[in-house]
Amino acid sequence: MSVNKNIASELNTLLTVSSGINDAGGNERFKKIMLKVMSDICDTIDQFDVTDEEFWQAINYINLLGERKETALLAAGLGIEHYLDLRADALDAEQGNARGTPRTIEGPLYVANAPLSPQFARMDDGTDNGEIMWLHGQVTDTDGNPVANAIVDVWHANTLGNYSFFDQSQSEYNLRRRIQTGADGRYAVRSIVPSGYGCPPDGPTQALLNQLGRHGNRPAHIHFFVSAPGYKHLTTQINLSGDKYLWDDFAFATRDGLVADPVKITDGQIASQRDINQPHTEVNFNFTLCQARDNQQELRSNRPRALQS
Amino acid sequence: MSVNKNIASELNTLLTVSSGINDAGGNERFKKIMLKVMSDICDTIDQFDVTDEEFWQAINYINLLGERKETALLAAGLGIEHYLDLRADALDAEQGNARGTPRTIEGPLYVANAPLSPQFARMDDGTDNGEIMWLHGQVTDTDGNPVANAIVDVWHANTLGNYSFFDQSQSEYNLRRRIQTGADGRYAVRSIVPSGYGCPPDGPTQALLNQLGRHGNRPAHIHFFVSAPGYKHLTTQINLSGDKYLWDDFAFATRDGLVADPVKITDGQIASQRDINQPHTEVNFNFTLCQARDNQQELRSNRPRALQS
Repeated sequence: MSVNKNIASELNTLLTVSSGINDAGGNERFKKIMLKVMSDICDTIDQFDVTDEEFWQAINYINLLGERKETALLAAGLGIEHYLDLRADALDAEQGNARGTPRTIEGPLYVANAPLSPQFARMDDGTDNGEIMWLHGQVTDTDGNPVANAIVDVWHANTLGNYSFFDQSQSEYNLRRRIQTGADGRYAVRSIVPSGYGCPPDGPTQALLNQLGRHGNRPAHIHFFVSAPGYKHLTTQINLSGDKYLWDDFAFATRDGLVADPVKITDGQIASQRDINQPHTEVNFNFTLCQARDNQQELRSNRPRALQS
Repeated sequence: MSVNKNIASELNTLLTVSSGINDAGGNERFKKIMLKVMSDICDTIDQFDVTDEEFWQAINYINLLGERKETALLAAGLGIEHYLDLRADALDAEQGNARGTPRTIEGPLYVANAPLSPQFARMDDGTDNGEIMWLHGQVTDTDGNPVANAIVDVWHANTLGNYSFFDQSQSEYNLRRRIQTGADGRYAVRSIVPSGYGCPPDGPTQALLNQLGRHGNRPAHIHFFVSAPGYKHLTTQINLSGDKYLWDDFAFATRDGLVADPVKITDGQIASQRDINQPHTEVNFNFTLCQARDNQQELRSNRPRALQS
């Protein structure tokens, strides 16, 4: 039963005071945003006649979410991170900006300052007996010219779907590398084919997804930051075709233009050129970068990120 | 700049999928609530053109809030806990229910199962040299008849504004007691006059209040649960008049009918009757309980609470 109509004036007074909106001091923009957020919360409580018990469950849930540091995972799972990409795309369209390789979500599992190598790096430490992957491609501008000195920052999961750093059983920076392109704009890495993964099964994100009747799985994918002086920073991922969850990613990251087809290489000569003396999987993916309007656009967002200590 | 108008259909699809609203499984009520919450979040992002950096600051803030277990403190500070009381009052009015002692917020600092004594208890362990307080009163029904066997569950801060259990330097259950009334409905405790307190100065709640230009202080107050078989559970607090923050509580708990006037007792005979052989402060506060319609109303909410182990 909605009771707000009877306390509209008291609620208005409460939110005016609690947001500090009419007082000096503080951050004016933040006050306005908080007033909107608190009004929405009270409106939800009223519209659904949220009980005290439900309210405190929600409060307790947020404590747990923070304790497990899963807020970013949940933001991805609820599609809010993807929504930021939809907005950035719409803004690009509105401003008539060139479109390069599509952006998609970063996710919460990046670690800064992975080892940097020119043109090629081996990403795996040799302990995971997964299928060997040769991942390579070219970075070009929107006219198709190679971009030299681009940094291709790659990170992906192992065959168990786990990421080094967050999975302390892996070696430092395992499956995390930065490759700098040469004059031809090309990059190449030797790694292992990653597996998809699910949310921690005992964590609050999966618990919430269960209440929505949703799974918490991602298809196999590879994350990239691609950047170069004079070009807009690109945050993206590629998915490997053939995965059960390819178009059913719980984090909404799969996009047209970001699906790569793995190819089995059995030609001994190609394998030998790559110093891989066995059949392996090749993934080819090229990136198109757009010109930056200013230095700010060359940088990734100031999101807090993990740092290997 | 609002870009939602250009992506209304994509946003709608995203929220439909992410809320699981059209799928089988999960909790139908929860899905509807989450759809509302997520729509509101996306609307806020659009209305204020929230930047990636601001968004990730918010995500990081929630992680920190949970890590410090301050979500309930923030809910009090933003007035949302008080809003639940306003709603319960409005519902009482709408249903024509009798009004007893006003309810007010519980706050996050209750600990269950404090020692239980008939009619009287000493609450302090004698280590705090604060002003001695004699707190007493009567529990009656709405007709003024004494309520026997009511449990008056009292908790308050020490002179530093700290609560035992959360402040591990205090002894177990210090300043926490349950008193059972006798046939006359009366309760009495000897304790020390509590001090007001502020939010942890280095915590996320205070950090947010700073952005709103608000302080995080509470006036001196004493918490109560009052319950008795056949009566509606009462969660309330009383404030001590004369406090600088009496009507400027950051948690919005002060209410008409919940302010007590401390009285200085210098009469040696009264002091001696109380086994206190010195001048002290008396606080008198009576409670009026309303009849419960069902057993459920006799109980406090199922909010998660601390438990002394």
